[in-house]
Amino acid sequence: MFLLTTSLSLPVTSYGDEGMYLFNDLPLETLKQKHNFEPNSQWADQLRLASVRFNSGGSGSFISSDGLVLTNHHVASDTLHKLSTPELNLIEDGYLAKSLDQELKAPDLELNQLVSIEDVTDRVNEAVKPGASSDDALKQRRGVISTIEEESFEKTGLRSDVVTLFGGAQYHLYRYKKYTDVRLVWAPETKAAFFGGDADNFEYPRYNLDATIMRVYEEGKPAKLDNFLRWSPEPLQESELVFVSGNPGRTQRIFTVAALKFLRDDRLPYVLDFLRRKEILMQQFGLEGTEQARRARDELFGIQNARKAYTGMLAGLQDPQTFVAKQAREDKLLNQLRDNPEHKELAAAWAEIAEIQDAKREMLTQTVSLRSTLFDTAMQIVLLTTEDLKPNDQRLHEFTDASRDSKLQSLLSEAPIYEDLEQVKLSDELSRLTILRGAEDTLIQAILDGKGPRERAAALVEGTQLADVAFRKQLIEAGNDAVQQSNDPMIQLARKLEAEYRRIRERNEQIEERERQAYAKVTQAVTQIEGTGGYPDATFTLRLAFGTVKGYVEDGKQIDPTTNFAGAYQHAEAHKGQADFDLPESWMNAKDEVDLDTQLNFVCTADIIGGNSGSPVVNRDGELVGLIFDGNIQSLTSDYLYSDEQARAVSVSGVGIIEALRSIYDAQSLADSIGK
Amino acid sequence: MFLLTTSLSLPVTSYGDEGMYLFNDLPLETLKQKHNFEPNSQWADQLRLASVRFNSGGSGSFISSDGLVLTNHHVASDTLHKLSTPELNLIEDGYLAKSLDQELKAPDLELNQLVSIEDVTDRVNEAVKPGASSDDALKQRRGVISTIEEESFEKTGLRSDVVTLFGGAQYHLYRYKKYTDVRLVWAPETKAAFFGGDADNFEYPRYNLDATIMRVYEEGKPAKLDNFLRWSPEPLQESELVFVSGNPGRTQRIFTVAALKFLRDDRLPYVLDFLRRKEILMQQFGLEGTEQARRARDELFGIQNARKAYTGMLAGLQDPQTFVAKQAREDKLLNQLRDNPEHKELAAAWAEIAEIQDAKREMLTQTVSLRSTLFDTAMQIVLLTTEDLKPNDQRLHEFTDASRDSKLQSLLSEAPIYEDLEQVKLSDELSRLTILRGAEDTLIQAILDGKGPRERAAALVEGTQLADVAFRKQLIEAGNDAVQQSNDPMIQLARKLEAEYRRIRERNEQIEERERQAYAKVTQAVTQIEGTGGYPDATFTLRLAFGTVKGYVEDGKQIDPTTNFAGAYQHAEAHKGQADFDLPESWMNAKDEVDLDTQLNFVCTADIIGGNSGSPVVNRDGELVGLIFDGNIQSLTSDYLYSDEQARAVSVSGVGIIEALRSIYDAQSLADSIGK
Repeated sequence: MFLLTTSLSLPVTSYGDEGMYLFNDLPLETLKQKHNFEPNSQWADQLRLASVRFNSGGSGSFISSDGLVLTNHHVASDTLHKLSTPELNLIEDGYLAKSLDQELKAPDLELNQLVSIEDVTDRVNEAVKPGASSDDALKQRRGVISTIEEESFEKTGLRSDVVTLFGGAQYHLYRYKKYTDVRLVWAPETKAAFFGGDADNFEYPRYNLDATIMRVYEEGKPAKLDNFLRWSPEPLQESELVFVSGNPGRTQRIFTVAALKFLRDDRLPYVLDFLRRKEILMQQFGLEGTEQARRARDELFGIQNARKAYTGMLAGLQDPQTFVAKQAREDKLLNQLRDNPEHKELAAAWAEIAEIQDAKREMLTQTVSLRSTLFDTAMQIVLLTTEDLKPNDQRLHEFTDASRDSKLQSLLSEAPIYEDLEQVKLSDELSRLTILRGAEDTLIQAILDGKGPRERAAALVEGTQLADVAFRKQLIEAGNDAVQQSNDPMIQLARKLEAEYRRIRERNEQIEERERQAYAKVTQAVTQIEGTGGYPDATFTLRLAFGTVKGYVEDGKQIDPTTNFAGAYQHAEAHKGQADFDLPESWMNAKDEVDLDTQLNFVCTADIIGGNSGSPVVNRDGELVGLIFDGNIQSLTSDYLYSDEQARAVSVSGVGIIEALRSIYDAQSLADSIGK
Repeated sequence: MFLLTTSLSLPVTSYGDEGMYLFNDLPLETLKQKHNFEPNSQWADQLRLASVRFNSGGSGSFISSDGLVLTNHHVASDTLHKLSTPELNLIEDGYLAKSLDQELKAPDLELNQLVSIEDVTDRVNEAVKPGASSDDALKQRRGVISTIEEESFEKTGLRSDVVTLFGGAQYHLYRYKKYTDVRLVWAPETKAAFFGGDADNFEYPRYNLDATIMRVYEEGKPAKLDNFLRWSPEPLQESELVFVSGNPGRTQRIFTVAALKFLRDDRLPYVLDFLRRKEILMQQFGLEGTEQARRARDELFGIQNARKAYTGMLAGLQDPQTFVAKQAREDKLLNQLRDNPEHKELAAAWAEIAEIQDAKREMLTQTVSLRSTLFDTAMQIVLLTTEDLKPNDQRLHEFTDASRDSKLQSLLSEAPIYEDLEQVKLSDELSRLTILRGAEDTLIQAILDGKGPRERAAALVEGTQLADVAFRKQLIEAGNDAVQQSNDPMIQLARKLEAEYRRIRERNEQIEERERQAYAKVTQAVTQIEGTGGYPDATFTLRLAFGTVKGYVEDGKQIDPTTNFAGAYQHAEAHKGQADFDLPESWMNAKDEVDLDTQLNFVCTADIIGGNSGSPVVNRDGELVGLIFDGNIQSLTSDYLYSDEQARAVSVSGVGIIEALRSIYDAQSLADSIGK
């Protein structure tokens, strides 16, 4: 599943159908020359305004005039999970609202529609005083960004984010219309959406109905939309040109050899150890009973997905050939730089980046963030009420006026918090932190308070009132003094850790700032020597990718670019008796009604990455033809290396979704309203 | 499951029913005073000679005059796995030989019966020249041990092992009669043996039939045995005194605070990361299909068991209270030592041990052992054929004349080797080693040969002929020159790694020798100050433990010491729908025939640990009353700390085994022959 991981923003030159382009800098020349396609600005605006970002970590699109939103089941699953109870298991059973009043409100979703983009690079750079130290530059830049965002927010009422592009060479102001009343209309069973489970994840051929439909509301009514995608009635054809409009989360294609080595030798091994630890933890919790399994499932899926993605990424980096090509290109570039007196000093950026990796290595294991909902809530409340006392331009970024509402929405979510799961997670985090800092560390001793991790976690979870939304609300409203004096044990723990949290964060942001400055120089160097700007590394902001529907060869075998419903039934039969390979009852019952030749999934060469999950795929006419939900295993290295030899984006076909709604889910009127 | 982990040998003083006593130094006084029991030497000899060690990592007992052996299903599962095929799935379906000719021969089992014990401490110590350096002492000690073993082997024809006890304060020569023709008679289904699966592992109450019966053969016929255990027809009673005769693998009760901190801060976190990595790897492989799941299952179970055991052990060590008590005792002891001019210098041992932990920390991640059957086979063949050229007393220990036969038996095992599984395991090991040594390491570059770990592993596994037993035999017989010139890629890889393997091993053995010398002083100090010798830390050699059948209180609730068959059916009903909580068909079908009140499992306070799995539990009359198979979760800290407050050994009741054989498995004649 192409879910969002985390974000760091950088720039690149492109090959083949490579590229995640900015909507204000589309590759018009390439599209014309390579694909004989010349979109007008209306085509692009329409597509942009019909695209939405799920702030929980994915993409989606508007697909009707009355607010319908299409995304992946696995993007929606966080919401499905939060809406489920032991009695109403949306994850397992799926859902169909037969009327508007049956549509279920998501407890904390925020959808963003990108309304405008403005280049504010000059204003940001002017705020940095000449000769400012790296730390001062960071403060000045942070300050002006908060100011720009606040001014924009005040003026337009729109969510306003300054986005760092090309690793700091450009800053753009993105304005979003926010939708926070989002309701569930239809979801299939996980058995259909995640057919083949962890085994089939990142594989192809696939037969997954990884789709869910929601609806945005305004003032309690379905939102009226001017911009939404029409739906193509035609299946995809081999070689057809398609476009993907979505929010790729993070790529690192500009990374220098030194930076990739840090990834390979330190960061990915560390992250994988972490993920495997959490995977086993969640599995173990799920073994305790069916209800525990239900509670753990959504998080477990996310962890497994990330583990599989990072494993593929590391495998690519551990292949010596990856570095042969990368090193050759870097050597050539550096030689050209050094030969040119004008660019000579830019070469220093590579050495700077190598040094920065040492600093990152040192910070890698430094954390006091205990990953559990209750602790995180406590820490956010402690930070929020402290930041509220500061002037806007000096606050941590997520607590500025422009961002505060989004933060509050998540802090006051009605989503259930399960004490048994919290206890297990917090206990594991206390144990992990004890290992990372050492049991003799004074902060650890203060945290554990003379108890073992399990016992301490039990006391904290049993003692806190933070599971109660009203208590959270009251505490936030009471403000900083009340929080400082609170005797809630989780709040007290967060207060104990606040100073260290700020120290670590400050240090990391300083390193990132140094890195941004260095990569801005790298971008400059690449542009000057290789002559292309291309597209910036992904930043979980809206991008346009393009490609063609195309099969590939794997182990000497030609893989077809499309699959159909007949294949789904055959796949289930071939894997009979294996976990996650049973189609749901609804599919088995409808086998005679379904047109088995209908296209179900397809692959294309478009350049996507985690965060693109749920992105609409459109044709030359801007009509929806598919829904991105995955990349194949060969695409897992695309974080740092695009290739169209075998790497492919995997989508659900638009016609497949309609066929399923009509023939399997008895959702005629929903199917009728799509695209209209 | 109380399976063997790994071994390092050390000494202790005892509390309560603590103690794993040497058969040549039984706690007669304690038994008399505490339990009013005075066993005569015949009682002890009979029990010793009826006990067997499974060299694959467990314990067992002779239970009939015609060679029947009782052990755990999970001790036998390695053999069940090796004897299984996709068509004959012994792990899933169990097995019952209806006649002698249906008994299935294990491909590589070796069972050891302890025939005699001789104290050779003086001879070992005299071989170390006064003033020898630590390295020289190691060589001299190693040499004399090999010589003693060889002389004994030549003289008696018995397997002869010199065992290091009390951390090097004593050396005893153990002579074993070896049984290498071992055949499977009866095994239940895994659903009955491992009822409740990973979720119930190390929990109590339990309802597991974790038992399997084999038979030892001599010269192609069932062995005639003089010593075997009679079977008690009575269920266990609360407070009844019981004895456990088995082979606890490793305890570390003598460990100093510094040594326990190394465990807590470094070794256990490292091992747990390793185990979680392998657990996910095996799970992923199993997802590929039912046959793959079958191939991976036995190893996966072992990994999960170890992961759960070590997690419990770490939790105990991360509890600050564990160290409060330990530190207080150590401080008191050290003060008493320092106050006494005679013992003063012994205190230096504690500082020495603290230093040794630094050396161990440094070596922790140093390895070139790629854990896969084919690579391990290659490395063993390379080492064997090189060691064969050396005089006996200079060889690595497992290649001396006294050990070579056991080594050959395992190298020439007919157990199947699965290429797909080997490839996945080797690929993971290459990736892991790349992380540990760094991708730029010249040895790594030589190993990977310009390829990524996956590609390289595929080439190695496809290229080697080592899966063929005849090829292995021929290579070993051809000797060192042939191995040096072999173009088998796996052999070539092992040759590339041989020097580094020897360097790391030599360094580790030097550290262990230093540690042994230091702990010998600690033993001396403890004996002089606290006045008791007690028992030495476990060494995977035969020990006697004792205790009483006794319940305990958990979360305020009284836990009964015994369970019965009725409870098993109720437990299955209560966990309906959860994986691993279905009883097998045989049990469901026999529900009406089984006497539901028959005792099935029980707990007692005897001091056991991994390696004790399969140990017989006997009563005052030396009759078999149970079969150890587990410890409860509270016993997981017993590696370094015995307690009888909540920690319990978990056993199958003898009467439960007979009832199952008669009423569920239709094995009347087998049941009739037991104990006779």
